[in-house]
Amino acid sequence: MSIIVKKFGGSSVADTEKLLNVAHIITGAYDQGNSVVVVVSAQGDTTDELLQKAAEVNPNPSKREMDVLLSTGEQVSMSLLAMTIEKLGYPAVSLTGWQIGMKTNSNHSNARIKSVDIERIKKELDSNRIVIVAGFQGIDKYDDITTLGRGGSDTTAVAIAAALGADVCEIYTDVDGVYTADPRIVKNARKLNDVSYDEMLELASLGANVLHNRSVELALKYNVKLEVKSSFNKIPGTSVKEVGKVERMLVRGVTKDDDVARISVVNIEDTPGKAFKIFSLLAKKNINVDVILQSIGRGNTKDITFTVAESNLEAALEILNDNLSYIGAKSIEYTKDISKVSVVGAGMASNPGVAALMFEALYNEGINIHMISTSEIKISVLIDEDVSDTAVRAIHDKFNLA
Amino acid sequence: MSIIVKKFGGSSVADTEKLLNVAHIITGAYDQGNSVVVVVSAQGDTTDELLQKAAEVNPNPSKREMDVLLSTGEQVSMSLLAMTIEKLGYPAVSLTGWQIGMKTNSNHSNARIKSVDIERIKKELDSNRIVIVAGFQGIDKYDDITTLGRGGSDTTAVAIAAALGADVCEIYTDVDGVYTADPRIVKNARKLNDVSYDEMLELASLGANVLHNRSVELALKYNVKLEVKSSFNKIPGTSVKEVGKVERMLVRGVTKDDDVARISVVNIEDTPGKAFKIFSLLAKKNINVDVILQSIGRGNTKDITFTVAESNLEAALEILNDNLSYIGAKSIEYTKDISKVSVVGAGMASNPGVAALMFEALYNEGINIHMISTSEIKISVLIDEDVSDTAVRAIHDKFNLA
Repeated sequence: MSIIVKKFGGSSVADTEKLLNVAHIITGAYDQGNSVVVVVSAQGDTTDELLQKAAEVNPNPSKREMDVLLSTGEQVSMSLLAMTIEKLGYPAVSLTGWQIGMKTNSNHSNARIKSVDIERIKKELDSNRIVIVAGFQGIDKYDDITTLGRGGSDTTAVAIAAALGADVCEIYTDVDGVYTADPRIVKNARKLNDVSYDEMLELASLGANVLHNRSVELALKYNVKLEVKSSFNKIPGTSVKEVGKVERMLVRGVTKDDDVARISVVNIEDTPGKAFKIFSLLAKKNINVDVILQSIGRGNTKDITFTVAESNLEAALEILNDNLSYIGAKSIEYTKDISKVSVVGAGMASNPGVAALMFEALYNEGINIHMISTSEIKISVLIDEDVSDTAVRAIHDKFNLA
Repeated sequence: MSIIVKKFGGSSVADTEKLLNVAHIITGAYDQGNSVVVVVSAQGDTTDELLQKAAEVNPNPSKREMDVLLSTGEQVSMSLLAMTIEKLGYPAVSLTGWQIGMKTNSNHSNARIKSVDIERIKKELDSNRIVIVAGFQGIDKYDDITTLGRGGSDTTAVAIAAALGADVCEIYTDVDGVYTADPRIVKNARKLNDVSYDEMLELASLGANVLHNRSVELALKYNVKLEVKSSFNKIPGTSVKEVGKVERMLVRGVTKDDDVARISVVNIEDTPGKAFKIFSLLAKKNINVDVILQSIGRGNTKDITFTVAESNLEAALEILNDNLSYIGAKSIEYTKDISKVSVVGAGMASNPGVAALMFEALYNEGINIHMISTSEIKISVLIDEDVSDTAVRAIHDKFNLA
């Protein structure tokens, strides 16, 4: 008998028909003698509706109260799913974040999991019940309700799988798995049967919206076997495995992320500590910085350029402009009309020709590269947003990924 | 400085405008230096919407899962109210049933409060925060979510007021207070400035839908000062006080309840233990019985007639018909076209003429009385439902209540 954790996103539980579909998937696994724990997100547009309700009463509510409000979304979907499973004649029990002892820090709206007390889940599994758990939510040390931020339900699923020592954590989505590129952009994109944790991490953080990178990090750390599969098609998905066990390929996929803004801090005095000042200011505001590029000093000044998510641009500009003299810079420049396009693959670490091949594909399309960033298994370029789809297709062809 | 508990029903917090109105009432009391705890119900039609969602997936869901689902309604309204208060520039914190340690028994959908751990509420009041609490919900000894059933939020408010030793528990509704009769039926009905706990109890249990009787019982038991007032009009409401402190009047009010069904168990053997058998069967099904009338034995058989809420009629008929031979009866008869009309007043205990005056009013209107039931402070009659409004008006006039 295996312990299986299954996670279903909001679109998979959006209405009565979809709940029934999901209930059949769950009871199918239960009928095979498995212990099944299910993690659910809020139904379809519920979160947006709750955000709208909040905006009506207060455009700037406290994050604590937002978490109290938003966490009801998962509580609704988990109870409806439990009822649907009961309707099929199976025993089910739904549990909230606090009921499963999902302890987090107090960073409301973007909390990190600290521990899971799985006694309650184990007790219910021992009673042969199907356990439905609210994703995305936890409690802090004050017993206040917290939420985990983007991709939070994936993280909940992996954390529970790790704590239970589950045999597999299956992430159900509305796509069939992880592709070599977004099938909406690249018609002949191919589904990957497996990827390594590192590759999945890069793909997740680069805008392949299948799995959130926090959940992949957690899966890697606790050696949780992950599978990404479709809620609607009964075909094999993509397995996330240790690097030695994945198919050998130079490049696994091409991704793009349009949610990128570039900020340049211009004419900074070329003295030590400047980068520290800039990035500690941003960290204080909880703003994640991605690609960083520092120009070689010209005379006694230099420029520091970096990218942030577009949603963080305004806050970043505000804190930097407020502290221009503290930083010792002349001005701040920025643009939003920019995309990040990346190739990912564990194979490229030992293949120096990958970057050249990628740049050639872009050159052939006449696409200008603004910034370049590389890691062991990834090369990213910043290019103009209006040519990002063209770039993805050109690179996908160049590496024969179809 | 006083501790005030204020309870607002679903219609008082139904939308953004009403939430703002309620927030002004609350911050007004806070500005006067009071510690304010607020208990809220789910917004307007939220509970009906959730019931509808549940019915779509499962017409007969478990009560445990229904409680998980329904309890989200109060969590939504409490967080929205807290955000509205924050918008006005005041500190607020919302707390669920489990966060305030509202412990109940495990009777899902109709649980009874066992204890309230008010440490968390006290801590927040000591930090000068306005505390918003979810009404209607609690947790049992297994940490499962329970709901308190009809009028549950009133009961939550009184329980918290008792535990905190609050100076007053104010129940806000969409009416101005307790009236001598339903103003929709009796045009010249008069608002009462005060009623005794006993009178309020009888009025509540007799269909004056202002306060649920469980909350009045609890207020009486723990000596909580109750006030019923309007969320929308700034006029004094009705105070519920000890009997010695209320206005002396023969009769305080006339009420009617159309949600009554009459069941007769016919031709029962006239031997001991029959009533026990009938009412223990009903108790097992959690069916409350109201007026009971047993005919004087004729020969070796008798009839037992009683009333139940219409919603319990079907279940009562089923259990009785299934056990006809166990009870030793011939058949079960019933009707739903019946109402209970009652007069209530602490004064009537020492005034033997009250019943006669009531019966005279009905006789003048040609209304036939099917059953009569009396207590120290109440006289109820069962009459045909189609003349119940006429009866209420006639009795109200007869006692000069206008």
